[in-house]
Amino acid sequence: MRKVAVLRKEHFNAAHRLHNPNISSSENVKIFGKCNNANGHGHNYDLTIRLVGEVDPKTGYVFDMKVLSDLIKEHILDRFDHKNLNLDVEEFKTLNPTAENIVITIYDILRAKIDARFELKVLLHETERNFVEYPI
Amino acid sequence: MRKVAVLRKEHFNAAHRLHNPNISSSENVKIFGKCNNANGHGHNYDLTIRLVGEVDPKTGYVFDMKVLSDLIKEHILDRFDHKNLNLDVEEFKTLNPTAENIVITIYDILRAKIDARFELKVLLHETERNFVEYPI
Amino acid sequence: MRKVAVLRKEHFNAAHRLHNPNISSSENVKIFGKCNNANGHGHNYDLTIRLVGEVDPKTGYVFDMKVLSDLIKEHILDRFDHKNLNLDVEEFKTLNPTAENIVITIYDILRAKIDARFELKVLLHETERNFVEYPI
Amino acid sequence: MRKVAVLRKEHFNAAHRLHNPNISSSENVKIFGKCNNANGHGHNYDLTIRLVGEVDPKTGYVFDMKVLSDLIKEHILDRFDHKNLNLDVEEFKTLNPTAENIVITIYDILRAKIDARFELKVLLHETERNFVEYPI
Amino acid sequence: MRKVAVLRKEHFNAAHRLHNPNISSSENVKIFGKCNNANGHGHNYDLTIRLVGEVDPKTGYVFDMKVLSDLIKEHILDRFDHKNLNLDVEEFKTLNPTAENIVITIYDILRAKIDARFELKVLLHETERNFVEYPI
Amino acid sequence: MRKVAVLRKEHFNAAHRLHNPNISSSENVKIFGKCNNANGHGHNYDLTIRLVGEVDPKTGYVFDMKVLSDLIKEHILDRFDHKNLNLDVEEFKTLNPTAENIVITIYDILRAKIDARFELKVLLHETERNFVEYPI
Repeated sequence: MRKVAVLRKEHFNAAHRLHNPNISSSENVKIFGKCNNANGHGHNYDLTIRLVGEVDPKTGYVFDMKVLSDLIKEHILDRFDHKNLNLDVEEFKTLNPTAENIVITIYDILRAKIDARFELKVLLHETERNFVEYPI
Repeated sequence: MRKVAVLRKEHFNAAHRLHNPNISSSENVKIFGKCNNANGHGHNYDLTIRLVGEVDPKTGYVFDMKVLSDLIKEHILDRFDHKNLNLDVEEFKTLNPTAENIVITIYDILRAKIDARFELKVLLHETERNFVEYPI
Repeated sequence: MRKVAVLRKEHFNAAHRLHNPNISSSENVKIFGKCNNANGHGHNYDLTIRLVGEVDPKTGYVFDMKVLSDLIKEHILDRFDHKNLNLDVEEFKTLNPTAENIVITIYDILRAKIDARFELKVLLHETERNFVEYPI
Repeated sequence: MRKVAVLRKEHFNAAHRLHNPNISSSENVKIFGKCNNANGHGHNYDLTIRLVGEVDPKTGYVFDMKVLSDLIKEHILDRFDHKNLNLDVEEFKTLNPTAENIVITIYDILRAKIDARFELKVLLHETERNFVEYPI
Repeated sequence: MRKVAVLRKEHFNAAHRLHNPNISSSENVKIFGKCNNANGHGHNYDLTIRLVGEVDPKTGYVFDMKVLSDLIKEHILDRFDHKNLNLDVEEFKTLNPTAENIVITIYDILRAKIDARFELKVLLHETERNFVEYPI
Repeated sequence: MRKVAVLRKEHFNAAHRLHNPNISSSENVKIFGKCNNANGHGHNYDLTIRLVGEVDPKTGYVFDMKVLSDLIKEHILDRFDHKNLNLDVEEFKTLNPTAENIVITIYDILRAKIDARFELKVLLHETERNFVEYPI
């Protein structure tokens, strides 16, 4: 059977603040600049999930996009969308919500929910100009 | 002289919370849903400024886009970008930062800075799917 | 009160065929070219609804975007999305589903559902390069 | 010589219906939902072809994009564009035209027309949110 | 009959230099900055033509988009695309090719070719962030 | 430590002419067509830089996007933006500025400025439809 990659793009809107509580305020400002603003700022995040697997001859699908969309909704969007990542999302209470840490966190959450026979990759756009991929 | 409209698109990333302090919590939730989340959420706002005026025969410009971009930066982006609109921006401490109220606020700020011989219009995308224009 | 325009973008995917049953086959081919293909073709339609009204001081909204989205879903998307416009949608059984006729049809449907104090305009992208607006 | 990937994006507009004739109507509806609509629906497909090869020192090209565009036009667009995939395109008379099956079909057609010294990959967007890649 | 606006988007890639030969070099640099670079620079221009007219009951069209596209190709793209506007295009040998002057020039060319019963408007994107409209 | 890819998108606007001085005029026209226009044409180039590395536990960053943006500005944009690539940029005085040669040139410049522990990849869009990647 031939393997195809299928990709599904979703969105969430969230506030965040980049901050490391283990270093001084001045070092936080030096490293994170305006992203360290005490009251936070926010983004329209574009989230793309990429699965690789064999095409099922019965359905012509690698993975039902509706099922994938529902999985993303249940495990990611319902927890991240219209939230303050630092204050409302468990994982980021002790982890700085940089795009890098968000993409790894989303990967770990979804990897546990998607059968291991599918390769999984996560792409996250924080803005149109800054984005990340995991794993590489 | 013939009049041309010139448009300049800029961006800012901000957190906000939709909330009316003069009504009950339950009514706030009913009206604003997940946008009422206590710790806020955020957006990549796309801001487009449209000026209408005559083309200057010397420059071929209606308005120097570099000057317009600097004006937007000084009066809007430096105050709104990477901020929490409700907590960090004076105008929204007492005004609910809906897209409608943000676009009127930006218009009022810029109208005072741009010569009255130029017609001014402001367009604001909160997401790819929700946007506003003022004046109509 | 100041008036603001609020816009909401939605999508539907539909098949259609451009054909006028009152003229000959050869004239249909001459006018509509490959769009006259007997078995139809299709598009991802982008639909943007623009309402103009006063900002409600209580909510900061002109119109609740969730309510507008639900209206579009109920009256347009549920009837047009994943359909063959010519065969499945009542209005186009006797009306050629050109972008012009679709945009007028959508306007008429929504105009009847939205309070007359709001100005209404409909924009429809058939492709990235061909789009229409009604009324002008 | 160093290898570069060159990519060319094209478009086609087509109708399709997801359906497996070997299973019951109710199972088809269960699997394909609204995509199983008897009269079909449609999409603006974005097709991206990616070739990898060495840069020709005479031309500075890996592959002439005009020649690639003409190849895609002759072998894919002229057969798929403004067509009903299920009814008008030979390959899909017996193959369910899911994005996965379309992308493999396009790959097989183009692979036979492009010199084997070029690696070939095909990306297909069915909508802005659903897309596929083959091979991985 | 009801009037609909139909819009067609086309592209051209051109070099240009902003320069006024009637003022000094230093004033040119002061006004046009890096856009005054002696050897020019360039853009992917997005050109959108908007026509307003009544829907023809026979065709369901305001204006055949294929005919409009051919008109734009013959009168604009064949003269502007893959050209140096200042050196290769007659109109800009004595007119500074700012976006404002380009949009007026395109309007004047097309206005003479399109029946007066259609209202005409031209939109020109020089970049994603700078664009112009004429007439207003 | 887990590796993440971080990507940063920048833009530059430049003129270029495709031409090989070692072959005849007629062969240049045959190979490069309208891209061989003597006075050049131009593009809005979209440049995306992709770095792969481990996430620094102190910052949550693979690489500071502000530092990457400044590096791109200093070494690429300040030399390529608003320039005629053939006439103003040293590397292309003797190298045909095809997208392939531009992307390799940018890679070589940046590879020398970015620590070898980061994998580097460059993507360049010449238009929305033509783009290149190096290395593969």
